[in-house]
Amino acid sequence: MPTIALDSNLITTFDPRSLIYLFDMIGIVACSISGTILAKHKNFDVFGCLLVSIVTAIGGGTVRDVILNRHPLFWMVDMNYLTVITISSLLMQIFFHPNSRRVDTFLKLSDTIGLSAFTLIGIKVADSMGTNVLVALLLGVITIIVGGIIRDMICNEIPLVLQQEIYITAALTGGILYFVLQNLGVSAWIADISAMATIFTLRMLAIRYDWQFPSIEWKY
Amino acid sequence: MPTIALDSNLITTFDPRSLIYLFDMIGIVACSISGTILAKHKNFDVFGCLLVSIVTAIGGGTVRDVILNRHPLFWMVDMNYLTVITISSLLMQIFFHPNSRRVDTFLKLSDTIGLSAFTLIGIKVADSMGTNVLVALLLGVITIIVGGIIRDMICNEIPLVLQQEIYITAALTGGILYFVLQNLGVSAWIADISAMATIFTLRMLAIRYDWQFPSIEWKY
Amino acid sequence: MPTIALDSNLITTFDPRSLIYLFDMIGIVACSISGTILAKHKNFDVFGCLLVSIVTAIGGGTVRDVILNRHPLFWMVDMNYLTVITISSLLMQIFFHPNSRRVDTFLKLSDTIGLSAFTLIGIKVADSMGTNVLVALLLGVITIIVGGIIRDMICNEIPLVLQQEIYITAALTGGILYFVLQNLGVSAWIADISAMATIFTLRMLAIRYDWQFPSIEWKY
Repeated sequence: MPTIALDSNLITTFDPRSLIYLFDMIGIVACSISGTILAKHKNFDVFGCLLVSIVTAIGGGTVRDVILNRHPLFWMVDMNYLTVITISSLLMQIFFHPNSRRVDTFLKLSDTIGLSAFTLIGIKVADSMGTNVLVALLLGVITIIVGGIIRDMICNEIPLVLQQEIYITAALTGGILYFVLQNLGVSAWIADISAMATIFTLRMLAIRYDWQFPSIEWKY
Repeated sequence: MPTIALDSNLITTFDPRSLIYLFDMIGIVACSISGTILAKHKNFDVFGCLLVSIVTAIGGGTVRDVILNRHPLFWMVDMNYLTVITISSLLMQIFFHPNSRRVDTFLKLSDTIGLSAFTLIGIKVADSMGTNVLVALLLGVITIIVGGIIRDMICNEIPLVLQQEIYITAALTGGILYFVLQNLGVSAWIADISAMATIFTLRMLAIRYDWQFPSIEWKY
Repeated sequence: MPTIALDSNLITTFDPRSLIYLFDMIGIVACSISGTILAKHKNFDVFGCLLVSIVTAIGGGTVRDVILNRHPLFWMVDMNYLTVITISSLLMQIFFHPNSRRVDTFLKLSDTIGLSAFTLIGIKVADSMGTNVLVALLLGVITIIVGGIIRDMICNEIPLVLQQEIYITAALTGGILYFVLQNLGVSAWIADISAMATIFTLRMLAIRYDWQFPSIEWKY
């Protein structure tokens, strides 16, 4: 039996006691809940909602790792991912109303925390596999948006995330800052915190003040 | 030339003379025909229908194997898959009317046989790669539903399979039974047959009596 | 750090000074522009359009290589791909009107050049990994259509490419010719040129005279 496929020594992992891991899990909860809400609106059943939640939460990281040939996948060696997704999707299905103000506020905050963690994890993972900076930034963006895009494709919606410029812009800004600080020889944890704080702040400001990147218009 | 990529000794295969292989092929035919019917309704041409059939039939197993890093893919080493899909899609396009009662009855039966085989194969493959039980069950579910979901995404439909609870429920019930029997030390073939029979029976009863899992309602 | 994942000696590459590489890049530009146009019509922002362009241009090759377990991916070792896509998507967003006659004519020509190059590259790559002829032809088709299909799935459109029979037919005809010539012992470059010329000519004639494969009709 080729159990070598599950030898987890080959991959970079994150310390479960670290801040980035905590933020990652908060983002996983946000994705799980947003997946559940959209799936419920499409009349999916309990397992349908759960599957959409799983895809939303780990789809981006899975596509990134498949592109990088980084096996075994993170959620196959660390069962916290599937556990957290399942619990939060079921709790959401049972106890909360999707349009409640509390859920909405929680989602905005947790999604932004997740955005900062997912971006940084995506970039660090790509970097650890030896890609160049541009590919690492692209894989960071893939980590944050692919889960939501697959969710929207399954549910027959046009992905909102591709229309909200400050989402990807915030991620890229933080990502570039991370590489600049790394090149300047700053300690790893300072680069991590600075990148995540930048992404979090930019995105929260964009939500608060409804920022939009000046878009290029075609006249028809 | 890295032909090592096609060294099929590394992967678990199923004996072409076994019952599970026969049921697998029946499921492949069911997927191929259901893909062809939906694609025809969308005015796809001969090759368009064939490609949708291929995706429906082997999409789930392909995604499962890519997630597990199990190469080469089963349909690249065993040409029966592509051959059976091509023949059944072309025959369906030429000879049968999609709304005929006979096609409908055949599809219900063959799809359920396929459901039981696909689930068991997915679980056994994941298990042989050393995943834990929960991941194996998830990969079993991926094997049965991803092909149909991609078919529906291509054809711009909302996946019905995520709204039909007894489909995934039947698969999970059979999958759990398989692991219970395996742990009890029952012979492999008895565990296989029991799991497949359970899935088949549950799903057929669900179709016959229009069973639905009690779903969790949100009041709007 | 497992940088072995990016050891590019393991994969077949194409000489940047060759005709096939030039045609490949022309096809990449065509995909990038068609992705940008559709994304703009859906009101995606600058980065949204860029991401759809990237998926359209390298999605097919990426899925082919993931299926073949051919790592690292071509666009991670050769930065020309992402560079050309980014420049052409941005230029299109800034300078051109999507409905202009000039863009339309350029797209028809460049897309057909790309079709011939993508098919040949897909087939040669699959062949170099040791697949049989049928699988190689299927992977050639995957190389040409999957990018456009994912673009259409993201943008919530039904893939036109699955309704335009001469597209895939032209690719398959050229692909079969390539294998016939190869078996006859013809020099590699003659087989390449003949296959690409056949695909290009068939597709251009099909556009010019609005050819359609006789399709199999169901009466409802």
